[in-house]
This record gives sequence, structure tokens and C-alpha cells, in this order.
Amino acid sequence: MSHPDADIFPHATEKALETVASHSAPQDLIFYAGWFCPFVQRTWIALEEKGIPYQYKEVNPYHKEKHFLGESLYSSYINPKGLVPAIEYHGKPLYESLIICEFLEDAFPSTPRLLPADPFERANARLWIDHISKAVVPSFFRLVQAQDPEKQAIALEENCKALRALAEAVKGPYFGGEEWGLVDTAVVPWIVRDYVIAEHRGYKRADVGGGWEEYAKRLESRESVLRTSSGKKHYEKIYGRYLRDEAQSEAAKATREGRPVP
Amino acid sequence: MSHPDADIFPHATEKALETVASHSAPQDLIFYAGWFCPFVQRTWIALEEKGIPYQYKEVNPYHKEKHFLGESLYSSYINPKGLVPAIEYHGKPLYESLIICEFLEDAFPSTPRLLPADPFERANARLWIDHISKAVVPSFFRLVQAQDPEKQAIALEENCKALRALAEAVKGPYFGGEEWGLVDTAVVPWIVRDYVIAEHRGYKRADVGGGWEEYAKRLESRESVLRTSSGKKHYEKIYGRYLRDEAQSEAAKATREGRPVP
Ligand SMILES: N[C@@H](CCC(=O)N[C@@H](CS)C(=O)NCC(=O)O)C(=O)O
Ligand SMILES: N[C@@H](CCC(=O)N[C@@H](CS)C(=O)NCC(=O)O)C(=O)O
Repeated sequence: MSHPDADIFPHATEKALETVASHSAPQDLIFYAGWFCPFVQRTWIALEEKGIPYQYKEVNPYHKEKHFLGESLYSSYINPKGLVPAIEYHGKPLYESLIICEFLEDAFPSTPRLLPADPFERANARLWIDHISKAVVPSFFRLVQAQDPEKQAIALEENCKALRALAEAVKGPYFGGEEWGLVDTAVVPWIVRDYVIAEHRGYKRADVGGGWEEYAKRLESRESVLRTSSGKKHYEKIYGRYLRDEAQSEAAKATREGRPVP
Repeated sequence: MSHPDADIFPHATEKALETVASHSAPQDLIFYAGWFCPFVQRTWIALEEKGIPYQYKEVNPYHKEKHFLGESLYSSYINPKGLVPAIEYHGKPLYESLIICEFLEDAFPSTPRLLPADPFERANARLWIDHISKAVVPSFFRLVQAQDPEKQAIALEENCKALRALAEAVKGPYFGGEEWGLVDTAVVPWIVRDYVIAEHRGYKRADVGGGWEEYAKRLESRESVLRTSSGKKHYEKIYGRYLRDEAQSEAAKATREGRPVP
């Protein structure tokens, strides 16, 4: 039985397509990705920022393929949850975008750091990543999926409030100062996609305040972000399903049922 | 206006009281704790396991005291969310139980490790901690607060399913093998409190399967767990409010409204 969300354009386009094309050769690290997925983009940006060699493999997570849910060298599955992103490193599978990013930090210590060396600053970055996971991302999904104007207004306010708190914690130019980091990486996929809520839900970057508009512009123009972004055209169909609250992804269902996004 | 949940017994009892008494002297690390709180117990266990000197300060988070929400040396608040646990280390505030635990790992590298040194094993531990946060803890709250028998049955099944998945990932005797670790630390407060769902919601450790009963017994008898556990008596009033779905804590409200626990 085919998944109602499975009918997705089959591959990345524009700039992201070039990046995919230059990462087709076998490597120790296999990156299982869906070109459209904001969680995937986090891991992708981390790989690009750190200059880690990887082989890009496109997976449509709605097909729930045996090859993906199925065996890897050391484990009986790649991602038992069937979500992208996932990686296989020397045959060992791993999933969850942010946990993969922390793994890349730990496993490739001589590449550019995404987390500060100072323990307190690291903890502070993790606090704000937690804020993105608990406040920014869920309110984005709620806002996109909300059909009732009153619920849309609540979700919009929650989203703006969550973004403003983050904006006020930015040292500048990037979250932690001069260097691009994991907080920037964790939030930027929802900046790149905020035209959806701007076009359909009355969101305005300038309304967020606290310097958000400038920060958002800075982040979306980062080379690693551009290199992992596809053309807008093929997103329309995907977001159309969310905007009409028809999407059946795990995240969409969780949002609808009032559960944490997976 | 006083918070409806603020009427809590004012301090730890039994074994935990002894631990509190021996940690009253000023130290570089101040531990803001509520004796009853499962999230607090995580951080408390980590401090005990690592043997880090700390000063215990009891905070009733429902009083939302200025002293707690208010100024610390380097910041205008200790925890802007007003939740325990929080710490102040050399005057710098930090909160979120799991983020504090990771901070302790980073800041006190010569104390016993709670996370494996191997990057892949670390990532695997973090995956299961994520599972505890997203599946184990929320289903526990849902189960305790559910009034409708059908909803109780669903929550019970979800809770058991989440625990079983964890049980099956345990290497033994502890999650990661011979040594006590952060996964054990993250889940044990909900093992210590599972008599609540056993007495009132039909939960049985043996029903979970996958070796859960033996693992749970091993964890709850750990010295650091005993030393941070108060007598059952004063929990009754607190859990009574949850069991009747009257509690007004942030976690209780989030559970009621179908939002992620904070
Ligand atoms: N928490 C996960 C979320 C990943 C996720 O939800 N990915 C989506 C695509 S954007 C997916 O694979 N969905 C498949 C499904 O929902 O069935 C992460 O951060 O990696
Ligand atoms: N995610 C937080 C949760 C902490 C939490 O919810 N603590 C409760 C006590 S168990 C609290 O302070 N509640 C005060 C309130 O809800 O107003 C953590 O892991 O530290």
C-alpha cells in the first residue's frame, strides 16, 4: 500500500543537485537523505561545513523501503523509525539529525567545530538547540497545519515568541559569535522554509523583532545552506498537503494529535 | 497568588535528607533542587556518581521566587523557565536536567564518565536518552493523568512499548555494559516512581518484558539512586493531584493540552 505522501519529486534540484552530483562516489560515510526534508538539511549542512567526505543517497522515507528499514552491516536496520536523515559510518547506522551532528563533532575532531570548546558555552548552545526542538519546530508545524483562523493566530504568536527569544540570545553575526555553529545549523532549515508561513499564514520576519530579520538573512545566504537547498517549485506540492492538513508524515500526525514531533 | 501545586512538603526525607545535610556547605557549584522532582534526581545522581562537590539548595519551583527566577552573578535569571533542576557554577546559571549532565561530563573530565568515550557508542546513548525524553517520560505523564479507562489503556500500552524497546537495547548489567551511565541516570527516576502507575493504573514491570524487571531492580538499588530518594509518604499528595488530573505544573498542563512536556 503506498503512503499518501510518497508522491514526491524524486531528487534534489538546482544548487542542491550539484552538491548531490559531486557526492555520488562511495565513501566510509553514507548519508541517507531526502532532498526536501528540513531535518536532513541540518545534517547535510554539518557535513558540508565540516568538509567530511560522504556519499549522498536519496531515500523517499514514505516508501518505507526494506533497504532502508532493513539490514545494515552491524545492525538489523538503518533507522527503525524509518525517518531521514540517517547515516551509515563504516557500516554502523545512526539517525536523528541532531544526534548525527553531535556524532560528527565527536568522530571528526579535526574538522571545523560546530560546538564551542568551553563547557559552559557548549551547554548554552545545547539549551538553545533544545529550545528550537521544543518551541520553534513544533510551533512551525502547528502554524502550517492549523486550519482554524484562531488556532493559526495562536500558533503564529507562539512561533514568533520562540523565534524572538532565540534572536535575543544571538551574539552575532552567528548565534555563538564569529563562527557558524550548531544552533545556526539547527534552525536555518526553518528559516529557508519560512516563505510558506509568510505566503499563507501572515508571518513576517520583521514582526519577530530582536534582530531576527537580519539574522535570518545572514543565515540563509550561507554557502552551506545554499548548497543544500533545492528550487522552490517542487516543495509546493509537499507543503500544500501540510497547509490543507492532509499530510500523513509522522510529524504531521503527531502535530494533529497533539504529540511531540518525532 | 499562590500556585495550586505549591503546597509541597518542604524538604527531602530519609536517605535523601542525609545527602542534603552533608551538602549544605558553600561550593563553586550550587544545585537548585526540588526533593520530589524526577528531573532533579537525574542531575543529583550524576553529581553523586561523579563525586563533584556541590551545595544543595531546596527550591519549591511552584513558588516562582524572585531569588530563583531572579538575578545570578552573570545573568539576569537562574532559570527563566522557573523549573528545577538548575545549577550555578562559578556564578553562571544553567538548567535542563540532561544538559546539566552533559555539562558535568564536559566540565569535570577527570571524574567517572557517564557517556562512553567512543563517538558511536556516545551517539547510541544519546539516541536512547532521546527515546526516554520523547516516549518514556511523556507516556508516563499521560498514563498518570488519564482519567478515561480507554485512554489509560492506550497510555499504558505506549509506556510499556517504550520501556520494552529500551530494555531490549540494554547491554547489561547497565545500559551500556559494566558501568553506570547517562541512559541509566536519565530513566531511573521513572523506575523509582513506577509504584504510582503499578498501584493506580495496572502497570506491572513483568508485563514489559525484554528483561525490564531485572534491569529496573538493578537500577533502583544503585547507591546513588537510594541516596537521592526520599520516603514515599510525602509523594502521595503530589501524585494524588496528577492521578486526579488536577496538577498545574508545566508538565501536567502540557500533557493535558497535548504538547511536549517542557
Ligand atoms: N527527529 C527526526 C525527524 C526526522 C523526520 O521527521 N524526517 C521526515 C522527513 S522531513 C521523515 O523521514 N518522514 C517520514 C515519515 O514521517 O514517515 C530528526 O531530527 O532527524
Ligand atoms: N525538561 C526539564 C523539566 C524540569 C521540570 O519540569 N521540573 C518541574 C518539577 S519536577 C518543575 O520545576 N516544575 C515547576 C512548574 O511546572 O511550574 C528538565 O529536564 O530539567
